[in-house]
Amino acid sequence: MRISELAERSGSSIATVKFYIREGMLPRGEVTSATSAEYGDDHLARLRLISALTDVRGLPLGRVKEILALIDEPDLDPVAVLGRAIGALPPYVNGDRDEYPRAQAVIEALGLTYDPAFSAVPQLEDAIRALEHAGLDTTPGTLRRYADAMRAVALEEVGPLSEMSLPRAISYSVLGTALYEPLMLALRRLAHQHLLSEGTAHRPRRS
Amino acid sequence: MRISELAERSGSSIATVKFYIREGMLPRGEVTSATSAEYGDDHLARLRLISALTDVRGLPLGRVKEILALIDEPDLDPVAVLGRAIGALPPYVNGDRDEYPRAQAVIEALGLTYDPAFSAVPQLEDAIRALEHAGLDTTPGTLRRYADAMRAVALEEVGPLSEMSLPRAISYSVLGTALYEPLMLALRRLAHQHLLSEGTAHRPRRS
Repeated sequence: MRISELAERSGSSIATVKFYIREGMLPRGEVTSATSAEYGDDHLARLRLISALTDVRGLPLGRVKEILALIDEPDLDPVAVLGRAIGALPPYVNGDRDEYPRAQAVIEALGLTYDPAFSAVPQLEDAIRALEHAGLDTTPGTLRRYADAMRAVALEEVGPLSEMSLPRAISYSVLGTALYEPLMLALRRLAHQHLLSEGTAHRPRRS
Repeated sequence: MRISELAERSGSSIATVKFYIREGMLPRGEVTSATSAEYGDDHLARLRLISALTDVRGLPLGRVKEILALIDEPDLDPVAVLGRAIGALPPYVNGDRDEYPRAQAVIEALGLTYDPAFSAVPQLEDAIRALEHAGLDTTPGTLRRYADAMRAVALEEVGPLSEMSLPRAISYSVLGTALYEPLMLALRRLAHQHLLSEGTAHRPRRS
């Protein structure tokens, strides 16, 4: 396809496509004449990945480039490379601490894998600390309820990975993490609203 | 307690506490002498709510004030007032559209309550559109899987509401939505990592 079709199908402007090419984020098309080049489905898929990360999730360009570099040269252990790619997604919390005592205790109690290099560990630490500070319930039974729900969701999500090459798996994991998160959160809020709307059982007392 | 103890227990500085009082977000303490005032547990709870919203979730001050105004004068239907309070939380998406066709179809298919005034509806619309655009799975079975997991989580969460006054319920709902969201997302990412770490069944092929 020509650059105009590529732009249209990806939802980006031609100027934006050219910008990504200049930045080295998108490979040049195959030159077919002095004034035109041909682009393929790989270009389109990559452009959609870039667009989802920048336009939808608002990632800084540097973070998107980190992810693209991992896709282009995934010369690490698959678990490590996927962990690093997911670490380029928000939320960005300070991950340079020596210890994450709350996260470590919870992860071990849940029988999950504790690896302090994985960005979700400091994220969990901060989330638990914020809950404690606000006086909300962080007892093991409550945390396990959330963990069980997330494990059930995650189990379905990782299923397709074993059929994928590592570069494809990175793109799938990053997109899936970035784009199903807002879906889940919206569905949780809608479930609350529905439970309150469908009857008076859960409604607070009128003050 | 004195303002110094209030500040210490809330994790805010005295200057910050005084700022919230000047802004009308926190009631003045009971004056006990020309130079001191006494603060109670209500002040502490409110300060922790403000701090969770501003410091942890990064809400603009105007949004926090909206929530506080609803707590102080919840003169609406409980479902409507809770919906408005939750609507002051991020993500902030354009909610002024006439129609949300993707969200409406999904909400109705799931048997949930469709109310386009509720902020999670435009959030769901945008989330589904982003998934479609990136070429990810938005088939009814997949969306139902996420919705079922979120409904199970939500059912436990709304349980305590029926024992609460409306102002207390607003604070509980806002804090619970704002602070369990990061927890869930971290736990989902940790579940992915654990499933990949514990065996090779889900691992992508080495490219």
